[in-house]
Amino acid sequence: MDSYHMTPAQFRVEGKKLVDFIADYYEGINKYPVLSQVKPWEVYGQLPAEPPATGESFDAMLADVEKILMPGITHWQSPGFFAYFPANASFPAILGDLLSSGLGVQGMLWATSPAATELETRVMEWLAEMLALPSSFRISSTGGGVIQDSASSAALAAVVAARESASGFATNQSGISARYTAYVSSQTHSSVEKAVKIAGIGRENLRIIDVDDRFAMRPELLLEQMTRDSEAGMVPFFVCATIGTTSSNGMDPLRAIGEICRSQGVWLHVDAAMAGAALLCSEFRHFSDGLELADSFCFNPHKWLFTNFDCDCFWVADRRHLVHTFSILPEYLRNQASESGEVFDYRDWHVQLGRRFRSLKLWFVIRHYGVEGLQFHIRRHVELAREFAGWILDSGDFELVTPPPLNLVCFRYKGSDDENMVLMQKINAGGKIYFTHTKLNGRVVLRLCIAQTHTTRADVEKAWQIIRSTVPG
Amino acid sequence: MDSYHMTPAQFRVEGKKLVDFIADYYEGINKYPVLSQVKPWEVYGQLPAEPPATGESFDAMLADVEKILMPGITHWQSPGFFAYFPANASFPAILGDLLSSGLGVQGMLWATSPAATELETRVMEWLAEMLALPSSFRISSTGGGVIQDSASSAALAAVVAARESASGFATNQSGISARYTAYVSSQTHSSVEKAVKIAGIGRENLRIIDVDDRFAMRPELLLEQMTRDSEAGMVPFFVCATIGTTSSNGMDPLRAIGEICRSQGVWLHVDAAMAGAALLCSEFRHFSDGLELADSFCFNPHKWLFTNFDCDCFWVADRRHLVHTFSILPEYLRNQASESGEVFDYRDWHVQLGRRFRSLKLWFVIRHYGVEGLQFHIRRHVELAREFAGWILDSGDFELVTPPPLNLVCFRYKGSDDENMVLMQKINAGGKIYFTHTKLNGRVVLRLCIAQTHTTRADVEKAWQIIRSTVPG
Repeated sequence: MDSYHMTPAQFRVEGKKLVDFIADYYEGINKYPVLSQVKPWEVYGQLPAEPPATGESFDAMLADVEKILMPGITHWQSPGFFAYFPANASFPAILGDLLSSGLGVQGMLWATSPAATELETRVMEWLAEMLALPSSFRISSTGGGVIQDSASSAALAAVVAARESASGFATNQSGISARYTAYVSSQTHSSVEKAVKIAGIGRENLRIIDVDDRFAMRPELLLEQMTRDSEAGMVPFFVCATIGTTSSNGMDPLRAIGEICRSQGVWLHVDAAMAGAALLCSEFRHFSDGLELADSFCFNPHKWLFTNFDCDCFWVADRRHLVHTFSILPEYLRNQASESGEVFDYRDWHVQLGRRFRSLKLWFVIRHYGVEGLQFHIRRHVELAREFAGWILDSGDFELVTPPPLNLVCFRYKGSDDENMVLMQKINAGGKIYFTHTKLNGRVVLRLCIAQTHTTRADVEKAWQIIRSTVPG
Repeated sequence: MDSYHMTPAQFRVEGKKLVDFIADYYEGINKYPVLSQVKPWEVYGQLPAEPPATGESFDAMLADVEKILMPGITHWQSPGFFAYFPANASFPAILGDLLSSGLGVQGMLWATSPAATELETRVMEWLAEMLALPSSFRISSTGGGVIQDSASSAALAAVVAARESASGFATNQSGISARYTAYVSSQTHSSVEKAVKIAGIGRENLRIIDVDDRFAMRPELLLEQMTRDSEAGMVPFFVCATIGTTSSNGMDPLRAIGEICRSQGVWLHVDAAMAGAALLCSEFRHFSDGLELADSFCFNPHKWLFTNFDCDCFWVADRRHLVHTFSILPEYLRNQASESGEVFDYRDWHVQLGRRFRSLKLWFVIRHYGVEGLQFHIRRHVELAREFAGWILDSGDFELVTPPPLNLVCFRYKGSDDENMVLMQKINAGGKIYFTHTKLNGRVVLRLCIAQTHTTRADVEKAWQIIRSTVPG
């Protein structure tokens, strides 16, 4: 064996040590404060200023993980994590990802690992069926799905493909000349604004449509704005509707929005980053009514489907739009399989060229849990959220800001914004649970998102006890 | 424990099984054809059409990996992999990535895991020192480094930040109005063209500058083109220079290009995706002469630094450009640490919001090998490439197309383009080695890139024997 390399024999030893380290971590995760309590640059200051001239032992590294890094970790996998949207994981996903790292294939082209492309296609087809997605997104139609790293990249792919489609694929060639306008609601995720900026459209050409009392986009206002813009010589090209907005899980009326988009010839992207996982259960599928009118759709198994970050699933109704937008074929990437036109080269379906073998972790998750296991946990999280919302309603001190459609509860202490912020910061500093806030109708709102893999009823009860007992005065 | 979940105890068992599976894979990797020999849709067809209703055992999954997936894998980690640029890995990197998957933190903000941000900052500072990058890229200056997924994303970040910078941050706000022009050489990687399209600049506004006989950009032609464009009312805003082009490892003259960029007020991005790793060794640092004139720089440890995909290291000379370009702060992401201005929130340094804990694998690699171990292997690969080039020179049947500056040898059989393609395809179909082609000066050229972690002199000798013995006639 060459010098300096870790041998397979050493890897067997250190790998098994690390597997135990991770299992120990999950078994003892409650001993850590969920939100890291370190001060800025505290971790940095403990790491040597100079890189090591010579190699060190794996034990030394693992000791530093424990001693230096662990205090600086915010524990997304803790059952007490209720912040933001989750990034939940599971052991089958970790194993799938380990296999991906171990095989180390780069699936940019079909030829550079056919199994990486074809397993991804199969898993995306499975998911399309599991979520009852419209047939337009299936490969038997003109559609298809691809794994992106995150919903931000999916939004960017959708915006750019929509821009190209609206211009007859001319902006790729000549740059932006017309004044394109995009449409979101006041509750749409900030990644769409970021995408619109990156794509050269400009923030001023992003129209923010107002929402109703359930924080859903008002389609009549969308149509009014589009009409005004068209009359003013602008080119409406993109709408993003959301299944489960970040602040409050607001549900945009897809069918009404989709009909407007169809009538105006505008691309409809549907962002279901977290809530999309709920479509696994038929009782939640009314939220996707009208999805057959969409041009693209994404949801993140790395949020609420036990598949560790990063893993966003993105479908389009016409895959040729992606390929026309993103494909460039330099000589050094030419190969017989690509030229046959018989295969998918997924690098043409997104921004990046290189591709990690991400479908493995998703495949392991689906096979380990089976559809019924995944449904079981989604339903349980929703039940727990409803129960928590009930406790809020029954309390004298707190109010529910909006009924939770799924697993996110928006509530507030019946006091000032400042009191709510202080309450939250005090609890988060205590380290038992971690949750975050937003603003709705100009007021501070507390959010409890119940979606961590290992969160049980006892954890939600504990969260409620902590919140209640921290009430000011 | 909740039903359906894999328990920590099961994870200990299955995880160790998988560690052994991966070690076995590396020990037996030579039994597989390097380039997968499956036909399109062969793997897909063997995977069940329907997702499993109920859960399956881990053993069943691993059996399918072996039986269904393995024939469809192109083995990037095989010592016989000489294709494209490599995506080499190592056991320490695999372990670091496993820890990242296991901890499952999402480091979008400093607050969401301070250790993820601060380890990344430290490792990027180490690398800046290891590669002798100019002080402008260090955090003690106005610069700094961040891990991106790939050089494509780094190029996009650079293009968009340059566009914003050139417009006084107006295109983010109002969209593109002026006609911006970008500059690459005929040898620049296609990801820059992709970025220019995504950013709304348009392919027509990307100027392709010709190269000299070593495939390096000709700076006098760059200046001429820029001057012509400026005089025609266009706005030159971005130049990409390359240390080690993809086709031939051409080395652009950074100092001359950088001086032009400075004089014209144009952003210079330097793409050293593979060859950047060579800057670890002082004898190769003449290739980075002039780098202090650059605004951004990237290289991929996932190519030639034993860190598994994906891991691109991207530095800028003024981090405020990135933050001004990419930052959006919705209420639900606000937090005390960010508002203090004391910390880096790396989500403002790139396209994506969510972030995997990628610095762990890089940290493990640097600590395992030490600087001297990494230097050792870089030097060895370069020596092997020179030796292989010598065999080409000494042969009667083959010619060297250009002297190899580092680890990539460009050569051709002294025959027609077709004969060269047939030779390559025949060898790749044989499965012992895998290499790819490009075109230089309009002719087919064969490329042998020597950078796989486990490639030894014997593997390079074997490659040469196979190539020689496959010569037509």
